[in-house]
This record gives sequence, structure tokens and C-alpha cells, in this order.
Amino acid sequence: MTETLTAPLSQEELRVLDAYWRAANYLSVGQIYLLDNPLLREPLRREHIKSRLLGHWGTTPGLNFLYAHLNRVIRDRHLTMMNVIGPGHGGPAMLANTWLEGSYTSANPGVPRDEHGMRELFRQFSFPGGVPSHVAPEVPGSIHEGGELGYSLAHAYGAAFDNPDLVVACVVGDGEAETGPLATSWHANKFLNPAHDGAVLPILHLNGYKIANPTVLARIPQDELDALLRGYGYAPHYVTGSDPGQMHQDMAATLDAVLDEIDAIQQRARSGDHRRPRWPMIVLRSPKGWTGPAEVDGVPVTGTWRAHQVPLAGVRDVPEHLAMLEEWLRSYRPEELFDEHGQPVAELLAQVPDGGARMGANPHANGGLLLKPLQLPDFRAYAVDVEKHGATVSEPTRVLGRFLREVTRDNSTSFRIFGPDETASNRLDAVYEVTDKQWEAEVLPVDEHLGPEGRVVEVLSEHLCQGWLEGYLLTGRHGLFSCYEAFIHIVDSMFNQHAKWLKSSKKLPWRRPVASLNYLLTSHVWRQDHNGFSHQDPGFIDHVMNKKAEVTRVYLPPDTNTLLSVGDHCLRSRDYVNVIVAGKNDSPDWLPMDEAVLHATRGAGIWDWAGNEQGSDINTEPDVVLACAGDAPTLEVMAATAILREHLPDLTVRVVNVVDLMRLQPQTEHPHGMTDAEFDALFTTDKPVLFAYHGYPWLIHRLTYRRHNHHNIHVRGYKEEGTTTTPFDMLVINDMDRFRLVMDVLDQVPGLGARTALLRQRMVDLRARHHVWTREHGEDLPEVRDWVWPF
Amino acid sequence: MTETLTAPLSQEELRVLDAYWRAANYLSVGQIYLLDNPLLREPLRREHIKSRLLGHWGTTPGLNFLYAHLNRVIRDRHLTMMNVIGPGHGGPAMLANTWLEGSYTSANPGVPRDEHGMRELFRQFSFPGGVPSHVAPEVPGSIHEGGELGYSLAHAYGAAFDNPDLVVACVVGDGEAETGPLATSWHANKFLNPAHDGAVLPILHLNGYKIANPTVLARIPQDELDALLRGYGYAPHYVTGSDPGQMHQDMAATLDAVLDEIDAIQQRARSGDHRRPRWPMIVLRSPKGWTGPAEVDGVPVTGTWRAHQVPLAGVRDVPEHLAMLEEWLRSYRPEELFDEHGQPVAELLAQVPDGGARMGANPHANGGLLLKPLQLPDFRAYAVDVEKHGATVSEPTRVLGRFLREVTRDNSTSFRIFGPDETASNRLDAVYEVTDKQWEAEVLPVDEHLGPEGRVVEVLSEHLCQGWLEGYLLTGRHGLFSCYEAFIHIVDSMFNQHAKWLKSSKKLPWRRPVASLNYLLTSHVWRQDHNGFSHQDPGFIDHVMNKKAEVTRVYLPPDTNTLLSVGDHCLRSRDYVNVIVAGKNDSPDWLPMDEAVLHATRGAGIWDWAGNEQGSDINTEPDVVLACAGDAPTLEVMAATAILREHLPDLTVRVVNVVDLMRLQPQTEHPHGMTDAEFDALFTTDKPVLFAYHGYPWLIHRLTYRRHNHHNIHVRGYKEEGTTTTPFDMLVINDMDRFRLVMDVLDQVPGLGARTALLRQRMVDLRARHHVWTREHGEDLPEVRDWVWPF
Repeated sequence: MTETLTAPLSQEELRVLDAYWRAANYLSVGQIYLLDNPLLREPLRREHIKSRLLGHWGTTPGLNFLYAHLNRVIRDRHLTMMNVIGPGHGGPAMLANTWLEGSYTSANPGVPRDEHGMRELFRQFSFPGGVPSHVAPEVPGSIHEGGELGYSLAHAYGAAFDNPDLVVACVVGDGEAETGPLATSWHANKFLNPAHDGAVLPILHLNGYKIANPTVLARIPQDELDALLRGYGYAPHYVTGSDPGQMHQDMAATLDAVLDEIDAIQQRARSGDHRRPRWPMIVLRSPKGWTGPAEVDGVPVTGTWRAHQVPLAGVRDVPEHLAMLEEWLRSYRPEELFDEHGQPVAELLAQVPDGGARMGANPHANGGLLLKPLQLPDFRAYAVDVEKHGATVSEPTRVLGRFLREVTRDNSTSFRIFGPDETASNRLDAVYEVTDKQWEAEVLPVDEHLGPEGRVVEVLSEHLCQGWLEGYLLTGRHGLFSCYEAFIHIVDSMFNQHAKWLKSSKKLPWRRPVASLNYLLTSHVWRQDHNGFSHQDPGFIDHVMNKKAEVTRVYLPPDTNTLLSVGDHCLRSRDYVNVIVAGKNDSPDWLPMDEAVLHATRGAGIWDWAGNEQGSDINTEPDVVLACAGDAPTLEVMAATAILREHLPDLTVRVVNVVDLMRLQPQTEHPHGMTDAEFDALFTTDKPVLFAYHGYPWLIHRLTYRRHNHHNIHVRGYKEEGTTTTPFDMLVINDMDRFRLVMDVLDQVPGLGARTALLRQRMVDLRARHHVWTREHGEDLPEVRDWVWPF
Repeated sequence: MTETLTAPLSQEELRVLDAYWRAANYLSVGQIYLLDNPLLREPLRREHIKSRLLGHWGTTPGLNFLYAHLNRVIRDRHLTMMNVIGPGHGGPAMLANTWLEGSYTSANPGVPRDEHGMRELFRQFSFPGGVPSHVAPEVPGSIHEGGELGYSLAHAYGAAFDNPDLVVACVVGDGEAETGPLATSWHANKFLNPAHDGAVLPILHLNGYKIANPTVLARIPQDELDALLRGYGYAPHYVTGSDPGQMHQDMAATLDAVLDEIDAIQQRARSGDHRRPRWPMIVLRSPKGWTGPAEVDGVPVTGTWRAHQVPLAGVRDVPEHLAMLEEWLRSYRPEELFDEHGQPVAELLAQVPDGGARMGANPHANGGLLLKPLQLPDFRAYAVDVEKHGATVSEPTRVLGRFLREVTRDNSTSFRIFGPDETASNRLDAVYEVTDKQWEAEVLPVDEHLGPEGRVVEVLSEHLCQGWLEGYLLTGRHGLFSCYEAFIHIVDSMFNQHAKWLKSSKKLPWRRPVASLNYLLTSHVWRQDHNGFSHQDPGFIDHVMNKKAEVTRVYLPPDTNTLLSVGDHCLRSRDYVNVIVAGKNDSPDWLPMDEAVLHATRGAGIWDWAGNEQGSDINTEPDVVLACAGDAPTLEVMAATAILREHLPDLTVRVVNVVDLMRLQPQTEHPHGMTDAEFDALFTTDKPVLFAYHGYPWLIHRLTYRRHNHHNIHVRGYKEEGTTTTPFDMLVINDMDRFRLVMDVLDQVPGLGARTALLRQRMVDLRARHHVWTREHGEDLPEVRDWVWPF
């Protein structure tokens, strides 16, 4: 399997390349250990060492090796290249290299490229008030947080989409490669178009160990590994060894070969040959902790899991460790690498690509620099006509699909829709009038809407959808992730990491705002008629609410026109995660477009046409507030209101609808939060509030517990009761149906007791009739199914 | 790639096997469509058809085909075989087959194996009050919910561990195969020991389409697919086609071949040959919707994505569709398959394995039947000595590790620890004194604790860990998942599905209780010194709380002895998900073991030795309650209490510690919930409560909003502020440090204002001193670091 390689580097080229590598390694070790004496001007002493040694050496020399070699090909070939670093704790490497190339200092003038800056670079690493040990937002050139493993390759492909001139090098850690998301990400090559997308160059870094264990891919026979990577559709090239000189020659030759292959693939595709290529990739098999101490305290370290973090842990207390550290640092011959001012010597600087070609300065990796607003049609043009509130029905996501069709058409290189095989099921299929689903594998005559130029990207992996979209957004483009509501939990942790990325990025003045990550969650909990309990989970909203208010937004548009308005708003926003929960089934059109825009803009409001306060003195409060958030709850509240208005006409009922869930929070907790005065104006300070909510009811309490009238707020929602049944039965078994809401009103409004006994009895009867009818006919009670707002 | 196969079936064998398959197909179609007239005794009429057609046909005939063939080899070879069904919507197939073999009726006497029962079988399917369309807990023989895709193979391997006589057939859907968890699950063969574990037989069902798209694995060239599967370490066998006669012969021959291979592998391993085998697997390439209507309304259906759900959607309204359905149903010749009573004819019944050998009656698939309690040592024997509250420190998880070492040793075929390469990092490494980490791939001399008999199973995939453990538990064994707290979110959705499985199972009288799924979450939010923000997320608790109270438990033991008691309790429990959050770092030993047992048992209580109420009249209330849940919050509350007792000795302070978070809820919400009287006794009805909580603070409000004193509860917790810093700095930036808590007390206790100005100033100073010290020295302020409970 070893390849016959030439020796493409002259001795001089090899010498300076190795010097660059040594410099990066020196700077990496310095970050892990040194508080002071960065250039080793004096013998290393205890007080030069950090009191807490926190950092990861193991993966770092390999990353430095790759960075040096990628710099060479960027210069030689005038490449636009990004570097996505999968191995989690590669922070020291990326900090070292960006400092060497000057991009770190451009972003962080407080860390200049001289002795003072080197001291600061070392000191700040994994230090209070400093920078994380991972490849985090703080690292120029990165779009990938290395803390939670598994998403590097998905991010790399997302970055490459619609960037035909970009090459995304992606280092995949062999530990990371064991994760599920990474294991399926290899297949992303079936979704990359060599003509209109850029190239991804995966580099599997087999250094053999994770924290405490060998890695699977490092311990299967070479022929198995090779079959696996070929099975994933790649042409693997291997660079294996530990001798720096030979490894430099091998890596240089291999990089030349794979970049020639990429070039050939792109040229062929761009001259009209649509056959799926076999993209090259590299396997770098090098020792963990390469160039570090071979043995410490009598046990092997380099090449084992013991090199994962800090190989010499006792430096402050064990003199031999301190001596070993000094020997280790001096083995890189810093005196040859840095001049008397601590600046890298000229021959190192000569190896750095120019300006924006430096990987730490590539504008794609700070996507906000390249971001252009979407060309958006006027969403009002897609409105459904609403002559009378609630008299007609439409399918919200189907109408939104028409708007998205135009967005897709008018932004043909900067907007994509991602989804796990659900775009049509979620009724967004109008987009197929202007585009296909991206597909590079075999197409059969029977297939529909598959093609190599598709703007919709579907694969049955929520992880890939999320990872691709993140990579696409962080490189300055726009997109939407459409997903079944229940299964968005599959990417809970990826959402966490993206929200953390956004929060951290906002504090970095040099990181520019990027387009928001928009989730459209549909096929939601209340309409899983044929899927049942496993598909019923509205808890993603709760999950999102734990992240910083400055980066999260949740919208529950009650009808089609409101969804259009919310959708337009989210596509224009920046640096947020927007969660939109909307139905795909026929549901009443409550609001004409002008009212919908107003309602979406204020986020929550009284539907005065629905309640019966109109005739009352404007200064009096209603007897009860029926509040709702979400399409199914809104329908039930409206039906309950109609029953109350018919049977208890002297009861004044107010209907409040909430679109923007964050409005419920105090303004001190969220920028969208209402003041207490605003809240009190909607919900009163002392009247019963019956709140029908789309998700788990506790969330409403969590959002409102500081409000004056909180003790009077009674929430109905999904309480984890579900099965395969009719839509109305789902409401009944979770006690959120209209009849139950009416009974709640009778319970909560003081003084209604005795004179409403017959009404209560009727509600009980209707629930019983529903139960019997549904189980006999397998469908909803006709009077429920055919109900229309009567006023 | 097509194999040369013999024709192992005689014509008679083939005929009856095909008849069995036709019967299962007939019963499957019947479930999707028929409300009545199950045996087609009369021509099909509109009123025989369900009003809502909900179900999935596409994958079903393939599953039926496999079931029939697996039955043959079970009989012929006297196998103990389970069947794990990955394709989500295979419900009709499993219901049909278990009804045919009688196991369905044994579990559900209301659905007998006759005409009446067949009608009921049809009617209940995807019908209100009936059964889900997925392979759900309601399906005998299943340990796998087919709703959320991706976990079948992990479940299958989990079932096979420590079951040397079991063969687990596992049908992997080609859509499912695109998910991340499934993509990495193939590698589970490196963790299966052919000597002491059973066998897994993966059957990749390539029927080509998902809901609306082709599948990746069906559209890559055959040589790529073959390389991929060989790269995963399997020896693939292919059964490809659509002609039933040929397919029966091919599948029979293939199954004989692969079972011979499995036999040979096991024999070789069990006679001492430890080389890793290349396990066989099957690829079944058959048309989606096989044997269904080829074309409907002029477009192809069978063999396309259109066969995914209900191929004839207009049966009730379009007479031609109704006629096609009747023709389709009659194509299976039901009159040959069922006798006049609707019972399967004798030659079908002759194909059913005996008793517990039937896949629907296999006791492994109803693991509670086989469950034996763990042999548990007395956890008190591992207690740390606590002569004085809080005077010593220990590492809680390290001590728990010693207890787990004995559990592992004493339950050597029924207890396993799963973890993503973190068991040692989480300081449970005492277990390696009695066992290894399970590892079947290459072992090098430098490796430690790797071996083919390991009871610890580590792979860098939380998905695999969770899936294996679920499979292990649902087949009647015990286990623990030890994980970094932040990254347990990776399996949020898997937890959802398992919790839903448990909730549904509890309602099925024939499903027996299984051991609880125990999470040990450590390396938690407050101690991510070298990992930082990406590793800080305590939100899994919030996620868990959304699921049914009857299946979830959350414990936050404040010290080592309490952790031991909680750990023992969880290992004895049944049918729960237990979440234990505990630290791994040195932390004070607050409680001697006898007090710890009492405290863990009551779940929440007053630490009267910590507050200064002792001298007070037993009938008076304290001035303030300092409450805490979690190890870091407990330490801060104790330190704050000490400051208050020293500087404001006449302020009566009560310390309440909460171990069992569910105790805070009303008893109406959770079986562990306190009554209001109990709650009021701890937290008073009107005194300020400062609550320091391990996670996101809103959760405490959500749990307590109905309590009398709720308006007086002020919660500090993690508010998503974090970075790489010292432990104490993490508390400061999230406002949960001792000094902040003291200031909170000064703010909240009425009348303290002016006379405590100096104390407040001192707290502010200490926070400032900490800030400066930490940023200069990179470590905590010494007086914080070295603080010991002074009383």
C-alpha cells in the first residue's frame, strides 16, 4: 500500500519547511507550559512554568506538519484554501501557525509577532481570561469548534458548496472518526458538484490513540482501511512514518498528487463531464505526540495515548521533568527560528502565503466578511386571501414553499435548503419547480427532481444537514433546515455548539455577523397521525431556551400569513438561531396579511375580533384570558372561545396569541421580553389565564414565573401522552382540547360554578362522544373536523 | 458479485415458504386498508376500508420475506434468534408474522388467531386506541422502536453481548444506513467476542428508496458498496432480484452459508483461536413495495419511493383503486392460506418454530423475563471515613469506581460499563483491576487494559454506547453509561426514544420490568478547566425532566458517600432512566455514611449541623434558607454559610441540600414529589431562599412554581457563561460563588441593609481580588482553594 514517491523537495526547500514545522511545534509547546522566558533566553526555571498545565500536545505536531505543507501548496498553486481541524484539541497548533503567519496578530493586535507577543501567546493559552485550548471562534481561520467531535467533515463540505474556487482541507481525527456523524459524513462526496462547488480534501490523521484508548481505524488491517475509504468513494493516498525528512518528501509529493487529481476532476466536470469523480484523500499515519519526549518516568509517551494531553506533568515539581522540557523545547532550535526580537526569521516568513491567502486570514472563514443580503421577494405577494378571520384554510408550509421557491431561484449560489428526506413531506415541494435535489450518485429514469445542480440537499442524516448548513452559513451564505419536529433533537448537541459559537463570536470584534441558522420544524407533535408516540416531541424549544437570549429566537406562527411574515424576518436576521414551528396540514387562515405582519412584529397580542370585549368599556378587564401559542392550540382556543361566547354571552373573554415565545420573558432576561406593564396589559394582573401551548406546559411557567399574574396562569400543553390516533384525539388525551379548555374556564372564573353545570356536562359528553366515535370510525368527530370560526 | 448459489429448497419447501410469505403479505396489506371483511368472503366494498389510510407498505414485503426465511433456519438449526427491525415502518410485517406464529395472540388474547382476530388485527393497526404503525413496544419480539432511525445495529450488538447462544438478525434499512449512528454501528464487530458473545447477522435491506429519495447505498456502484462493507470488516453476501422463486432459493442458500460461517467462527473462537473473525452479513436487494401494485394512475409504484406508504391512496373514493386493492389482496390467494375459521392452514403453522423459539416469543426480547438482580456488595464498605463534616476531601467517582469494580467482578456476564473513551478520565479506573476494555482489533505491547473479555466497552461514540446499553438492558441485563456531562446531549433523542419505550412498555402487562438505564454524568460543567465553553452544558437534566415522571429520576449527590448510596439505589431500580451527576475532583466529604444513606433516602433535607438553628427554639423559622443541589453549589453554599455565621452570628441560617431533584416537584407531578407541608417545612413559607443549583437556574423555578414560598426563591446556577478558566472563576462569572451568595443574602433578608455595608464591601473586594489573582497566577485565590468547613 505504500506509494512510490518521488522527492519533490530540494534539500533547501526541505530544510526551511522543516524549520517552519519546528517553529510551530516550539510555539505549541510554549503555549502549554510557559508563563515567561518565551525565547529561552535564560535557563528554564520553575517560575517560568504555568501553575496549572492544561492543554493537548498529542495531535498538535501532526496539525503543524500539515499546516506547513498546506502553506507550500497554497503558495505554489495560488490556492484559496481553508483548513478545518477535526481533532478537538488542536488549539495550540492553529494558534501557533496563525501567529507565525501574522493573521493572529491582525485579529488580535494585543498579541504582536515579537517576543512580547510570543510571551502573551503562551501565557493566554488555557489561562483565565485567555483563550480556549480548542480550535474555537477565537482562532482566526476556523469555522469549526474542536470541542465536541464529529462535525469537521460536514462543516468542510458545507463550506465548499457553491464556492467553486475554494479547497477545504479537513483534518479528521481518528478518534473523531469513530463518531456517528463523522462516519456518515464521508458520504458527503455524493452531494458535492465538482463543477459548481469547491473541493474538500479530507486528511485522516491516524495517530493511533484517543484519550485513553487506541482508535478503531488505526487498529484494523491496512486492506480493511483501504477498502473502507474506497467504499466511501475516495481514492486514498497514504503518508506513513515518523522520520521527518522522509515524511516531508512523502507529504509534499502526496499533496502535489492529490491537488493534481482535484484539478483534473474539476477541469473534467467543468467541461461538461458529469460522471461522479473519485475524490482523493490523504491518510497521515504519524506518531501521537511526534517530536515530543519519547519516554517519561520509564514509560513510553510519544506514539501512545500518554501523549494526549501534557506529556510532562510534573514540570514545576520534578527537576528532571523541567530539564526534559527545556531539552524538548531546545530540540526545535528556537535560536534559528526567531530573531533577537522574537520575530520569525525571514526564511520562515517567506513560506507564509500572501494576505488573504493565509489560512488564518481567508475571508471564507470569517463568512460575515463575504455575506450579502438575500434577494427576497415581497412575501406579501404569497399571502392567502383572508376576507373573514378563520373562514378559509390553507397549508402553511405549502404556501411558505412558494415563497422559498422564489428565494431559491433568486439566490442561486447563496441559499440552500437542507433536510433529512422530508422536504416534500413537509410540503415545501414548490421549490422543485425551480430546482432539484442535489445528487451526484446514480439517477434512474423513474427518479424525479434529482440533479447535480440542486439547491435542496437531502440525506437521511440530521447530523449532516445541520453540519452542512453550519459550514454554509459560517462561510457567508444563507439557508434553512426543514425537519420533523421530534427528530431535531438528534442535533441538540450540534445546536448547543453552534449557539456557543455564535455567542463567543459576537464578542470578537473581528468576526463579522453571519446569517442566522433557521430551523423550520413541522410535521409537529399534534399531527403525527400515522407515526405516533415516537414522533411526538416538542422539547427542542425547551432545549433552545437554555442558550443565551442574545442568540436564540423561537416563533410559533398561528397561521399561513403569519408564517410568511416570520419566515421573511428570519431570513433577514443575523447571528441568531431561529426556531420556527409551523404546521403543514390545512388550518384556518386567521389573519389577513396586514394583520399578520402587525401580529408577527409585535410578537404577541390581543385578537380583539375573537374575544367579546369590543362592546365593553375600554378600561375594564375581561373575565378570562384565553391565550395560545402554536397552530393547534390556537384552533382549540378559538373553538373554546366560540363555545363560551355562544353559551355564556355575558362572560367577557379575551384571546391572546403569542407568536414570539421570548416576548413572555421579562425584558431583563431577553431583548424581546415584554415589560411588566405590557405583560399586564395583555394578561391582566388578576384574571384567570388559560394558556394552550404547543409544547411541554412547564415552559410557559418558566417564562412567566416572575409576572404579577403568574399564579393565575393555567397551562395546557403536550404532557407526553401520545399514540397513533386522530388529531383531535391527541388534544383530548393531553387535555388541550376545546371542551377541556371550556371546563378549565368554568373551573377558574370565580362564580361560574352552579349556573354552568349543564354546559360542563355538555363538554364532558362531547369528550365521551368523541372517544366512542373515534374508536369506531377511526376519524375525528365530524362536528370537530368541520368546525369553522362562527363569528 | 452475484454468487453462485445452489437451490437448497425442494419444490415443496419452496411452495410452503412462499405461501407463508404470501400470508404475511396478505395480513400486512389487510392491516393498512381493511376495517372489515378480512378474509374477502364478499367483494370488497367502500365500507370495508378504513377512512384514514395510515401505514407503510414499502419495506414490509422484504421484512416478511426475511421473517419466513429466518423461521426456516431457526427450525432447521434449532437457533435462538432475535430479529431487530431497523426500517422504521415495518410494523405491519412484524404484527403479521407474530400473529401467524401465535406469539401475538399469547401476548394479546384479544386478538386471537382466527377470523375474529384477523379482523381485530387489521382494525387496530394505525387506528385510534389501536397499535402504532412502527415496530414499537407493543410488538412481541421487538427490543427496537422503528420510529427514529439509526439504532438497530447498536441494539442488536447490545443484545448479543454475553449471550453466546443467541443469534441476532438485524435488518438495516438503506435509509437508516445514511444516519450517523448507523454508519458507525457497523464497527461494533470490533467489540464483539465470538467466544463469549452471541452473533449479529446484519441484513442490509437495499430497497432503494426512502420517503421521497433514492438511498445513497443503493446508488453507488456495486464494487464501492462491497468495498465499504468489507472495509467495515464484514464478508457480504448478496441476494438480489425480484422473482420470488429465485429469491427464495437464493436467500435460503445464503442463510445456510452465513449461518455455517457464524458456526465456524464461533467454534474456532471457542476452541481458543483469538483472531478477529470476518463476520458474514447479507445484502438483500429487492424492490420497494415488492408484490404490490406495479403502477397506479399511470405512474410506476413498486420499486419506487411511491411505494413507501400507501400505494393506493384513493381506495375509498376511486372505484378503480378499490378494484386494484381487491386484486392485490387476492393475488396472495388467501383461500389457500387460511381455513374457514380464518386460522392459518396447517402447512403454514408447520413452518413456525416451537414455543420460545418463535422470534415473537423469544424471552431475550422481553428481557425482564430473564432479568436477575445484580449481586451487589455492601456499598457502605467503600465509604470514606468522615469524622467531622467536611474536614476531608475525596474524589467521588474514584471511590464509586471501587464499588463498581466489585459489581463488575461479581456479575461477570450481566453487568457492563459503557463510555466514550472516558472511563479513566472519569476516574472509574479501579474497574481495570478486575477487567479490561473490550477490544477485538489489534493490540500492541504498549497498550493497557485491552482485551477480548473486557466488561468496559469504550468507543468514541456516545450513540454506540447508548445503543449498546439499551440493547443490553432490554435483553435483561444491567449497565451504566459514564459520560462527560456536556456530551450526553449527543444522545438526547435516543434518551427520548428509550424513555418513550419504557413508558409504553409499562402499560403492557406481558412486558416485564427491565433494569434502569443509569447515566453517570461527570467531568461536569463546573470542572472543565482545560476544555472550556464547549464542554459546559448541564442541560441534559432539563431535557430528561420533560419525559414522564414515572420513568425519570435525577440525582445530584453532594459528596462521595451520598454518591455511593445513590449508585447502589440506581443499580437496584427497574424501568427508570436514572441520571446521576457527580464530580470527579477532590471535594469535601460532608456526610458520614450513615448520614449519607439517610440523606439520599429522604432525597432532600436540612443539614442542621451546617446552619445555626440548633440553639433556636424548634418552633421558630430561620432568617434565611441557603439551598443547594450539586457538588459545586453545595461547597459554595457551605462557604457562604460559614461567612454568614462568622460575620452575622445572630442571623439564623438554614442549609438545605437536595439530592433527588424530583423531590422539589409537587407530589401530584412526580411520585417523589414532596407534599406542600413537607416542602414548607424545609423551605419555610415566607423566608428568603437562596438556591445554588448545579444547572440552568430556571429548572428550579419550573419545579417549584406552585410552592407557597416560590416568590421568595432566588436561584443561582449556570447561565451559559464559561470559558477555559479556574473552577472558582467559573462560579464567579456565573454569579454562583460564595461571595455573591452572601451578597444575595444581604439583599434578600429584610432589615440587613445598612449594618452590613462593610460585609458587602468585603465580598465585593474578594471577588475583585480573585479576579486579579486568577488572571495573574492562573489559579484560584489560595484562601478559596484551601478553604475548609470551619465548624
